[in-house]
Amino acid sequence: MDALLQSLADIVGWEHVLTRPDEIEPYVVDWRGRYRGAARAVVRPGDASAVAAVVRACARAGVPMVPQGGNTGLCGGATPLDDGRAVVINLSRLNRIRQIDTANNTLCAEAGCTLAAIQAAAEEAGRLFPLSLASEGSCEIGGNLSTNAGGVQVLRYGNTRELTLGLEVVMPDGELWNGLRGLRKDNTGYDLKQLFIGAEGTLGIITAAVLKLFPAVRQRTTAWVSVPDPAAAVSLLSRLRGACGDRVTAFEIVGRSALELVLHHMPGARDPFPGDGAWAVLVELSDTVADGGLAELLENELGLAVEAGLIEDAVVARSLTQMKALWGLRENISEAQRIEGISIKHDVSVPVSAIPHFLAEADRRLKEVWPDVRIVAFGHIGDGNLHYNLSKPNTLDNNGFIAKTGEVNRIVHDLVVDLGGSISAEHGLGQLKREEVLRYKAPLEMHLMRAVKRALDPAGLMNPRKVL
Amino acid sequence: MDALLQSLADIVGWEHVLTRPDEIEPYVVDWRGRYRGAARAVVRPGDASAVAAVVRACARAGVPMVPQGGNTGLCGGATPLDDGRAVVINLSRLNRIRQIDTANNTLCAEAGCTLAAIQAAAEEAGRLFPLSLASEGSCEIGGNLSTNAGGVQVLRYGNTRELTLGLEVVMPDGELWNGLRGLRKDNTGYDLKQLFIGAEGTLGIITAAVLKLFPAVRQRTTAWVSVPDPAAAVSLLSRLRGACGDRVTAFEIVGRSALELVLHHMPGARDPFPGDGAWAVLVELSDTVADGGLAELLENELGLAVEAGLIEDAVVARSLTQMKALWGLRENISEAQRIEGISIKHDVSVPVSAIPHFLAEADRRLKEVWPDVRIVAFGHIGDGNLHYNLSKPNTLDNNGFIAKTGEVNRIVHDLVVDLGGSISAEHGLGQLKREEVLRYKAPLEMHLMRAVKRALDPAGLMNPRKVL
Repeated sequence: MDALLQSLADIVGWEHVLTRPDEIEPYVVDWRGRYRGAARAVVRPGDASAVAAVVRACARAGVPMVPQGGNTGLCGGATPLDDGRAVVINLSRLNRIRQIDTANNTLCAEAGCTLAAIQAAAEEAGRLFPLSLASEGSCEIGGNLSTNAGGVQVLRYGNTRELTLGLEVVMPDGELWNGLRGLRKDNTGYDLKQLFIGAEGTLGIITAAVLKLFPAVRQRTTAWVSVPDPAAAVSLLSRLRGACGDRVTAFEIVGRSALELVLHHMPGARDPFPGDGAWAVLVELSDTVADGGLAELLENELGLAVEAGLIEDAVVARSLTQMKALWGLRENISEAQRIEGISIKHDVSVPVSAIPHFLAEADRRLKEVWPDVRIVAFGHIGDGNLHYNLSKPNTLDNNGFIAKTGEVNRIVHDLVVDLGGSISAEHGLGQLKREEVLRYKAPLEMHLMRAVKRALDPAGLMNPRKVL
Repeated sequence: MDALLQSLADIVGWEHVLTRPDEIEPYVVDWRGRYRGAARAVVRPGDASAVAAVVRACARAGVPMVPQGGNTGLCGGATPLDDGRAVVINLSRLNRIRQIDTANNTLCAEAGCTLAAIQAAAEEAGRLFPLSLASEGSCEIGGNLSTNAGGVQVLRYGNTRELTLGLEVVMPDGELWNGLRGLRKDNTGYDLKQLFIGAEGTLGIITAAVLKLFPAVRQRTTAWVSVPDPAAAVSLLSRLRGACGDRVTAFEIVGRSALELVLHHMPGARDPFPGDGAWAVLVELSDTVADGGLAELLENELGLAVEAGLIEDAVVARSLTQMKALWGLRENISEAQRIEGISIKHDVSVPVSAIPHFLAEADRRLKEVWPDVRIVAFGHIGDGNLHYNLSKPNTLDNNGFIAKTGEVNRIVHDLVVDLGGSISAEHGLGQLKREEVLRYKAPLEMHLMRAVKRALDPAGLMNPRKVL
């Protein structure tokens, strides 16, 4: 009998200590099936003190731990390695919303709450929790915090980091830190929560968080804009932000090839400007004021932009149906690309001012070495984050295509970093970019990260070989 | 000849190595004259590489270092201790604005730039840098970053931390870390800059930062509101934020005794509602839209609040002069209190929802032990931060009054922490609250802070005995 397993069962009960291969399968493979690991056990604690006790037991036994939430990550950060030594600690049972304080505009949620559940609770309380991702029905806030998730509203509301006021974290030795403060001003020492946010579970296990709430949105208006090139899109963003300020909530760019994949594969999708435009922008304004003339404001500004020759055409959605149709053109790109075939993906960011140059230059450099490359570019241009993907051309088979990944990464990532950008804007490092990042991070920065890791997890048992 | 001084002069020149008592006087005393220290020398490097070289020299010699900017801090964090061992490293010569990127909405400034200079540069570029403090004419951004300064617009724009995208920092061993990225999305490892922000110079010396810019404000409207009690103020805040959203830029509470000090001591000050109201609120909305009907919106919402019996009366400023007069009633409280005599000050925060209870209960507990206590309460109620000060009553002399500080702190701070608040909302710990915070911080949190300090500054030479 495995003594560790017995002590884990003493904490959570045998029904929450999984060891049979069929039981643990969903926990040791990532949701896209790219990373497969093995685990000594999968444990499902029911509350923070159980998490602490589980960690204590594993730490005492010198057993590595892999924290896991909704298992929707894209870099294998929540998948155990294949040595089978680790215990996967799944947080999904910590799904209570502990408190909502509307006067203070805070919500305290346990790590296993799905993002959708938190959004719903905020809405029910007459507020908005603005973090919004494609996977929100299954991703959990602990994972969002650990990866500092972004999404489509970062332009207005910031990343998960900017939405967090306090954390409760189980340290690698099992100590429970209660840092659950709901204060917007607190200068009593180092802001320790910032270390755990975005640390991808390598410094401790987040068990709860105090999140910021915002006033409910009463009005949204969406427009699809045809622009001649990315530079026009960047100029339009400046104009709209200057005129409409914080109302600008989303600003997405969609390249022609990305749009065509959607028109081709998604039934009912229609191009607002058939045949026109190499690039399109999806822009959304929102406001708390119900009758704030938002659509008129947007129409007016877009009209001025057309008159100025900056953009070619624009249509403002006149109904909720039309708004959803426009958003569908953007939101279905990933699915359309998946149906089309395999692709090499990049999740990069550059300063907004560098986007036009990046897109033109990356295109040029890739076509130099690979003339029939199919570039599918789209993304959150408002915050500098682009999904710059390559779809497989017909001239290659799958293996031949994937074999080009290293060469393609070199070209794209080198350019991104030259422009002061990041090779992982949203998704984190996990296992996927752990080595790639070494090419680009200053040695001093890696040294500091390792110093922090050693200080907080001297035994190196917390999600080893992820990030670092 | 002091070999260290020679090596420092080799880096910056003798004109920037100060040792004569009359020369170093302004650098070893804080601006309020409360902390007086002594220094081996005051050094004024001219750029980041000089700072790095100076730090390297001091580190090699085992000499402690005290980073200093505009020396406007309120906790003695930038004042050397009186053992005279330290070298004060003053950053004021690093005063270049290195870059402004309006499309990316970023500004890169060296640590010695005054906040006012940065605000002006942003304005000239058609943007807004929203950090705003009383000392902005002389405080420097390096100090603002090191103390995570707040100010009056935190409700809308956040603290200095939320305004920072990248840092350049000289490590305690003299290594220069260039983390000057201007990206809103970057998930490539631990967010190291977060450690240095608010660390009060104890982990390294900030030499430059990339700051966020915002759209220029084209319209502001200000109102003075008479409310029956703090609970009404908190309710009004919720109503206004719900109706006006991000337009709400400032929301300050002014207690009757605070207002009366201003009316008494500041020539020309006039009470908008003579004789009425125990409490007043100063609220400001702002917008990028020039003709957005802001004054009408505020008037409308305040009218509804009067009708609902929530507030007693309100006046919306009709001119810039009137707007400045209203802001004067709030901004002159500190000066008026200083003219009145000495005071015991608190810079605390509690969840906004707890403000009414805090004010009532703190009053009650203080009057229990000190019936003729004179409480002067005012502050940034919108973000939970109150300046809860006690003016000396006529029945005590100065020494007798100050002697009560410990007892008063115990009552006020105990209550603040019980309510989930912070004993230093804006000003940091420095020397002033270094011991006081130990009463209230969890031992695990102090342990983590020391672990971080040891990891980044193993020799313990960077601003010793501040914060920790």
